[in-house]
Amino acid sequence: MSEYSSILLENAVEALSKLPGIGKKTALRLALHLLNEDALETEQIADALLKMKHNIMLCERCHNISDTKVCAICGNPRRDENTLCVVADMRDVLAIEHTAAYNGLYHVLGGVISPIEGIGPNDLQIEDLVQRTYREDLKEIILALPATIEGDTTNFYIYKKLHDFKGKVSVIAKGIAVGDTLEYVDEITLGRSIQNRVRFND
Amino acid sequence: MSEYSSILLENAVEALSKLPGIGKKTALRLALHLLNEDALETEQIADALLKMKHNIMLCERCHNISDTKVCAICGNPRRDENTLCVVADMRDVLAIEHTAAYNGLYHVLGGVISPIEGIGPNDLQIEDLVQRTYREDLKEIILALPATIEGDTTNFYIYKKLHDFKGKVSVIAKGIAVGDTLEYVDEITLGRSIQNRVRFND
Repeated sequence: MSEYSSILLENAVEALSKLPGIGKKTALRLALHLLNEDALETEQIADALLKMKHNIMLCERCHNISDTKVCAICGNPRRDENTLCVVADMRDVLAIEHTAAYNGLYHVLGGVISPIEGIGPNDLQIEDLVQRTYREDLKEIILALPATIEGDTTNFYIYKKLHDFKGKVSVIAKGIAVGDTLEYVDEITLGRSIQNRVRFND
Repeated sequence: MSEYSSILLENAVEALSKLPGIGKKTALRLALHLLNEDALETEQIADALLKMKHNIMLCERCHNISDTKVCAICGNPRRDENTLCVVADMRDVLAIEHTAAYNGLYHVLGGVISPIEGIGPNDLQIEDLVQRTYREDLKEIILALPATIEGDTTNFYIYKKLHDFKGKVSVIAKGIAVGDTLEYVDEITLGRSIQNRVRFND
């Protein structure tokens, strides 16, 4: 006999608990919620997930998630076509878009070089980044990868690969977070924020 | 433009974030996880949820969730047909089944009487419980409702309704939890556990 007196419920709990961060108890709570609600809610979730999974594609220019061959950012004529921000993941695009501090284009690598996870340069969109420097009229490439060893390695690898690029290659600033008090900042970050100090400017 | 550069992704995040305890950030994490995994995983989730929602029914005898007209517990000939445990919710059936301390049948009320939430006796399977005492050969009815004011009210209401019932009506014991030290137990629980003391028995 099924633990839940229903194989149908058990299958739903089983399927939901494969999602990251969702254990058996949470999955059961979600399934029972859906059982109590109108069937429309379950149908909307199932439909939205299937449509997303079957129809979403990667932008052929920047490799960001997109509903169309070229994504809404790449296709927006008001974006600055001379500046390119290289990120690891589409979540990073979201994070940068939320700052409203950037109006250029993106290039999504799909990860960072990580020998431990078996991710090499050829698993990432690095060669295509190099090709973009030939195809497009880029003046600056901003490397906005995670501040980890893997991110630094990838920054270095990309920098070497861009030896023919005539424009500027920059890296996002590392330093203390806005609102931080100095005593609680780790030494490496504080050291970097002193090395990378900028002229005071009101 | 969609916040996520994809309306399809946005719809999936929107649908998932209607689930209890799932906010926008978690929903996005789940959606991106599904995008990275094989389509089979998304299809399994969608399929399991739809099958559950469309095909699950309530057992016509005990009102527990079931795949068949009579649930696996009610249909099991090895369960004690003379003992009935009244619970508020199918989750309580699961909790009691996990204790392996009970081998009788259940009666799922579907909630407890709660004027604040607008739940009256007629919204619950109380009349059907009374009918079961006529139809079935019950020797004991165990009230296992939550130890709240609503649970106590419902216990009292059911007890009054069972005036014709010749068998025993009992209530699950309230007292200190196994493993508790007395100094941290609340006074009402500790008081109850003294009033309801049982003969020492090794």
